[in-house]
Amino acid sequence: MKKYTEMTKDELMQEKTALEAEYEKIKNLGLSLDMSRGKPGADQLDLSLPMLDVLKSDSDMKSESGLDVRNYACLDGIPEAKALIAGMVGAKPEQAIVYGNSSLNIMYDQVARAFIFGLCGNTPWCKLDKVKFLCPVPGYDRHFAITEEFGVEMINIPMTEDGPDMDMVEKYVNNDASVKGIWCVPKYSNPQGVVYSDETVERFAKLKPAADDFRIFWDNAYTVHHLYDDKQAEIPNILELCEKEGNPDMVFEFCSTSKVTFPGAGVAGICTSEKNREDIKKRLTIQTIGHDKINQLRHARFFKDVDGIKAHMAKHAALIRPKFELVENILTDEIASRGIGTWVKPLGGYFFGFEALSGCAKEIVAKCKEAGVTMTGAGSPFPYKKDPDDSVIRIAPTYPSLDELKKAAEVFVIVTRLVSVNKLLEA
Amino acid sequence: MKKYTEMTKDELMQEKTALEAEYEKIKNLGLSLDMSRGKPGADQLDLSLPMLDVLKSDSDMKSESGLDVRNYACLDGIPEAKALIAGMVGAKPEQAIVYGNSSLNIMYDQVARAFIFGLCGNTPWCKLDKVKFLCPVPGYDRHFAITEEFGVEMINIPMTEDGPDMDMVEKYVNNDASVKGIWCVPKYSNPQGVVYSDETVERFAKLKPAADDFRIFWDNAYTVHHLYDDKQAEIPNILELCEKEGNPDMVFEFCSTSKVTFPGAGVAGICTSEKNREDIKKRLTIQTIGHDKINQLRHARFFKDVDGIKAHMAKHAALIRPKFELVENILTDEIASRGIGTWVKPLGGYFFGFEALSGCAKEIVAKCKEAGVTMTGAGSPFPYKKDPDDSVIRIAPTYPSLDELKKAAEVFVIVTRLVSVNKLLEA
Repeated sequence: MKKYTEMTKDELMQEKTALEAEYEKIKNLGLSLDMSRGKPGADQLDLSLPMLDVLKSDSDMKSESGLDVRNYACLDGIPEAKALIAGMVGAKPEQAIVYGNSSLNIMYDQVARAFIFGLCGNTPWCKLDKVKFLCPVPGYDRHFAITEEFGVEMINIPMTEDGPDMDMVEKYVNNDASVKGIWCVPKYSNPQGVVYSDETVERFAKLKPAADDFRIFWDNAYTVHHLYDDKQAEIPNILELCEKEGNPDMVFEFCSTSKVTFPGAGVAGICTSEKNREDIKKRLTIQTIGHDKINQLRHARFFKDVDGIKAHMAKHAALIRPKFELVENILTDEIASRGIGTWVKPLGGYFFGFEALSGCAKEIVAKCKEAGVTMTGAGSPFPYKKDPDDSVIRIAPTYPSLDELKKAAEVFVIVTRLVSVNKLLEA
Repeated sequence: MKKYTEMTKDELMQEKTALEAEYEKIKNLGLSLDMSRGKPGADQLDLSLPMLDVLKSDSDMKSESGLDVRNYACLDGIPEAKALIAGMVGAKPEQAIVYGNSSLNIMYDQVARAFIFGLCGNTPWCKLDKVKFLCPVPGYDRHFAITEEFGVEMINIPMTEDGPDMDMVEKYVNNDASVKGIWCVPKYSNPQGVVYSDETVERFAKLKPAADDFRIFWDNAYTVHHLYDDKQAEIPNILELCEKEGNPDMVFEFCSTSKVTFPGAGVAGICTSEKNREDIKKRLTIQTIGHDKINQLRHARFFKDVDGIKAHMAKHAALIRPKFELVENILTDEIASRGIGTWVKPLGGYFFGFEALSGCAKEIVAKCKEAGVTMTGAGSPFPYKKDPDDSVIRIAPTYPSLDELKKAAEVFVIVTRLVSVNKLLEA
């Protein structure tokens, strides 16, 4: 296939005319398709339905600690839920605090408490002139929304195929005491599916932060979300490494079962050092008496252990792998071949981080919308929703059916070709 | 029975000698009893076990709005859960936002957001020199813990049998713009079981706050927690009254099923004006994607409607009424008859607010502890845990069995008599 970048103006004009006709046709189909959010499909949710039969009216409602999970008590989670959450990320059970359904809410609370009360006795961030967070981009829009809400100055850190640009990270963290955090999705990153390399994780652990209360917000959201049995990424244990490097308190590691069991009705937790856990519990005990221990027990009994989760995730993979491959194949055949888009082939997670030609993302998303296909807003994977290059589009293939996904991807291809041709003709 | 206050010194000395001997005997029994926390007994928790059979693997998992409750979406709760929570407090379903399991957490978040971001566009409280809350006393320790955590200056407002002293409330709220809130448990208050009179509620609605962002934190925790079928307190609808009086945004009303179904695994919500709801949702959407809708649906299907809750609460009442009556009778026979303690007879809720002779509460609680009976810490029902009169002790009769409760109450009686005698001898 001839690359658009190698076409003459005449060839591009011909292509434009043909694509405009196709686009008009598509617009008349009255499609209503959605590749915007990382939601599991209904068939994936069905996989976890048997969990609803695990606790019944005649079930033993005691945790392995002997606690009646139906009553008050137990601020930091029942032991079997700690083992499950910690096991998902390779942490020790005692490092975990298990909450309710939302890891996002845990992250929000960590930022909120740092602002109001300070972390581990440090000055509350609200009392500082300036608080900065490093934001590897493209990244997760809801992370950036939290720091934006608190008025944090967000600094873009480019992603490479090995994770964030660590030269930049080191420069900022080790020299600027107003840099208080960094948002990371270390395995199958949102949206690119990048897996941080061993060296990247090691360099994180070896940081020498200028600020005592600098924290790595290590959102290990896709820790067990592999697409392939034989190509499962593993990353080093950040908590262990940080301890070894004399930075035991530098990491908050987050994890949830939202895309393992039910989004919104899973369990979520944080794994971190003893000092951080004590700091959290001191505040948490004012905030709530405890989280939903019945749901914690339901999860623990359903999975039994981390191997149970892994077996369950293999079933998820079997359902969504064809969707990823369908998108991958269409993009390879129709887009990469024409030199008008790139992406990292994801081996896990929930997304493609598609990179169009510079200056094309907004227009592609708008034209898709016009044709009845909703994509994540252009700019969303960046702080302040500003993609400096206007090129990144997050593609979420899991929620639509294969059939819908095929239609949506075809629309995306036509639109991307058309917008790219127009861009090249402008140049 | 002769009142201690009418005894001669000799009579008191005789009483003291006898009581000290009894106390020594009790201490040797090696008791381990607990009347400290408002926890339902295991038999009460059993009442809600059938709720665990309501949603099974083959259940319809769609809300009445058509939403698949297993997936993401729906920040403010499914319609049937809104109807349930609003119905519990007599609000309109559209006035409700339904959260996860903890109404305490909702209150905490309301205070936290007011501090960080301000309410409805008002100045964030963290930017003010002084923020004050009115605290009807005795009250709920966890309310006071939240405002203490945020450095709020808490002002004691004496409780009467009709609710807080409204003259004082009006004086503070209508004249001091640094007064930003008041903690209220309007029905079967914690710990006294006081029901606010119609006049009290009406005077609340008619407040003319000096501060635009003054809010009544109306924790209707015991709204359906009646002890008697034929003596059920009702209070006026504060949301309606405030609207009528031109104060539509003045109330946050909180409610949960923690002591209806399972503490920790219930659903909780806030009912408030549209303006407040929009203000909340604007912030909440940054904090979480949504709460546990499966548990919301489980509750809604189990109860069907508010009448279902009322029928369920009658079963709770049947289990705990004998416990309240046992304590009531022992206290009447052994304490009131001797003129060494008073309380309001509770018709609902979870507690007795026992008032000992001045200066006796700490000593009574300490001596109970020594004899193996744990009471709520003296001072707990007051801001900063400081009971100016050292006289109030919260008694929580629901958790122990009747048999244990009888033993615990007998210890409490001996100890209270002994401490009172000592106090009178000092005088």
